[in-house]
Amino acid sequence: MKLSEKVQSCGLSPMRKFHPFAVDAESCGKKIYRLNIGQPDIETPPEFFKAVQEYTQKVLAYAPSAGIPSLIEAIQAYYHRLGVNYSADDILITAGGSEALLITMLCILDEGSEVIVPEPFYPNYATFIKAAGGRITPLHTSPEENYNYANKERLEALINENTRAILITNPNNPTGNSLSEKELRLITKVARDHGLYLICDEVYREFVYDSDKIFCAGKYRDIDNNIIIIDSVSKRFSSCGARIGMMISRNHELMAQAMKFCQGRLCTATLDQVGAAALYSVGPEYFKAVKDEYRRRRDVCYNKLSKIPGVVCAEPMGAFYMMAKLPIDNAELFQTWLLTDFEDKGETVMFSPGEGFYATEGKGINEVRIAYVLNEQDLSRAMDLLALAIEQYNNR
Amino acid sequence: MKLSEKVQSCGLSPMRKFHPFAVDAESCGKKIYRLNIGQPDIETPPEFFKAVQEYTQKVLAYAPSAGIPSLIEAIQAYYHRLGVNYSADDILITAGGSEALLITMLCILDEGSEVIVPEPFYPNYATFIKAAGGRITPLHTSPEENYNYANKERLEALINENTRAILITNPNNPTGNSLSEKELRLITKVARDHGLYLICDEVYREFVYDSDKIFCAGKYRDIDNNIIIIDSVSKRFSSCGARIGMMISRNHELMAQAMKFCQGRLCTATLDQVGAAALYSVGPEYFKAVKDEYRRRRDVCYNKLSKIPGVVCAEPMGAFYMMAKLPIDNAELFQTWLLTDFEDKGETVMFSPGEGFYATEGKGINEVRIAYVLNEQDLSRAMDLLALAIEQYNNR
Repeated sequence: MKLSEKVQSCGLSPMRKFHPFAVDAESCGKKIYRLNIGQPDIETPPEFFKAVQEYTQKVLAYAPSAGIPSLIEAIQAYYHRLGVNYSADDILITAGGSEALLITMLCILDEGSEVIVPEPFYPNYATFIKAAGGRITPLHTSPEENYNYANKERLEALINENTRAILITNPNNPTGNSLSEKELRLITKVARDHGLYLICDEVYREFVYDSDKIFCAGKYRDIDNNIIIIDSVSKRFSSCGARIGMMISRNHELMAQAMKFCQGRLCTATLDQVGAAALYSVGPEYFKAVKDEYRRRRDVCYNKLSKIPGVVCAEPMGAFYMMAKLPIDNAELFQTWLLTDFEDKGETVMFSPGEGFYATEGKGINEVRIAYVLNEQDLSRAMDLLALAIEQYNNR
Repeated sequence: MKLSEKVQSCGLSPMRKFHPFAVDAESCGKKIYRLNIGQPDIETPPEFFKAVQEYTQKVLAYAPSAGIPSLIEAIQAYYHRLGVNYSADDILITAGGSEALLITMLCILDEGSEVIVPEPFYPNYATFIKAAGGRITPLHTSPEENYNYANKERLEALINENTRAILITNPNNPTGNSLSEKELRLITKVARDHGLYLICDEVYREFVYDSDKIFCAGKYRDIDNNIIIIDSVSKRFSSCGARIGMMISRNHELMAQAMKFCQGRLCTATLDQVGAAALYSVGPEYFKAVKDEYRRRRDVCYNKLSKIPGVVCAEPMGAFYMMAKLPIDNAELFQTWLLTDFEDKGETVMFSPGEGFYATEGKGINEVRIAYVLNEQDLSRAMDLLALAIEQYNNR
């Protein structure tokens, strides 16, 4: 039986492919500190559950393909507070940021199209881009430069006739890089001057630690036709399981095309949309408390990690991830060993091996992505376990 | 800004593209009998809402990419009662049958691949197939033959080196055709003999009116590697807004590939999966009551419709749809007129124009799909409105 070339070119998620080993380890009673996946332990605002519980319709019916009006209005109000005004037609509700990305790629990529993505990047980007027939042109970044990619010459050197888009994650998963307004502006101009889409994945928008300035690329009105914002309630409101995201653009021709896919899959889950609309009622104190919590976690994680001999990393400026080069041979082998062979007082730790975050062959082999999504005490213990494990692994 | 060729080749959903006209008509106080969309008015079993309300986790977390174990077990038990045994690994939970179809197509189709689909067909199939780079090879059927497509010669005449799959909907949307076991067996053999996938969309499985025999193509074990079952809770439990479907196959190589896309989009909505698992606890009396209700609706709809002068249709055997050829020039113009110009006592009616249900250019122009998803009284009134409207439209 034939399988498509595109699916065969995709990989399993580096965040999720070690799940079976983790299940085995846990079934043997091992405790795992999971830093492999961006699943925060922060409580979902109770507003979500309350709205869902108060749903009184007797028939759980399809929602409109573009999303329910109350959710779209809540999102408009949220962006308005950021100083960015969107009309209801600029917003399509999707099954998480994931579906927003897939629909975007299906709308703009043909067989052989290229998307410039700073590397390392969120690995599922490759899946969505390949699903649409495209491929990633990686723009290399490094911890020594704080993973900065706002560089006109380097960006322009990668543009060719097949290039359709630049895809950025700001703040960045997995590097923790966060763009200044000046840097973002530079990138918008490159996209504008070369007639490229600029896909801005801003799902971590609120998580910026060294500045109070939160901004959205949608504020630059000279590139309304270029910019596509990917957003989601998953991280902002610790509601990953709701699968409510959105694709936002003022390019009406693009949005009319995207609607074809939205209609094709009928709608996004109705109850989750009702719950998500309620999430937007939480006040600024919620964001502040969560951000302060993550800042403390960032500090614990970075301070401990940077003291482990041989580790190379950069202090994250945003989101809740960091990349780290470890003094080991191979992060996949190391991760497997952590789950199957290592333990300290019945405990071990789990990361995402780095190779899947790169498109360039051979890169990331001894790197890991760490999601600092546990409380300070657990994070501290996880970093101690990592230090101990590196030593034992290299002496095994 | 460039748009992909594939999205430009897709159309808007014929079920949903008249939505803006309907909103306008309703805002003017017009009542619309909506037979355009497969949104049943049957109450969702309260088990769904109860399970969702009783969810006590404080963090709405990601579910496993393949689905939550309790839902997969409930589905296994349901199939076991049908005499079809699936292991947990044979089942991937998806965002409705829609996502199951899209993932299937992305896994098996390359640029230029062909899928044989009996015509008229569910129009969103074309969107999913085109999204994956493929195209539909239509197998024409007609009301005179009760829309039957179980014909070895006609099927084989369409197979060429680009053919990857046969896609059937059983019972059928939009025609109401329902295969006998003998007919289904014939099709499975064609797929087997030609090494094709047989994608069986069985979301209407329980809705068969002229037989008590409910069966699943998964029972034929000589084509384990060929068969992909598409299923969903949407219609079976009147839970369309839950967006819980599934892709089922014993072809483990295929399922391992499909897992890449499942991991790529992380998971299906967690709470809806919890609710869906509870749906499977409803007893056979639920299915019987719902089926009896739809049988009565079918009878009302067909009896009235077939008496309208000039209408050509076949009595539906299953699902809750029928196609009808109307004595009008163009169903899209007629539908627009129904919403903008027609009314009787402030009421009008809405169907899905037929053209989008065909891949063959020029077919279906004066046809409509009727979803008999309203109660008998409303359906009866809707059919009377249709008769009246046809007369007025042709005399306008």
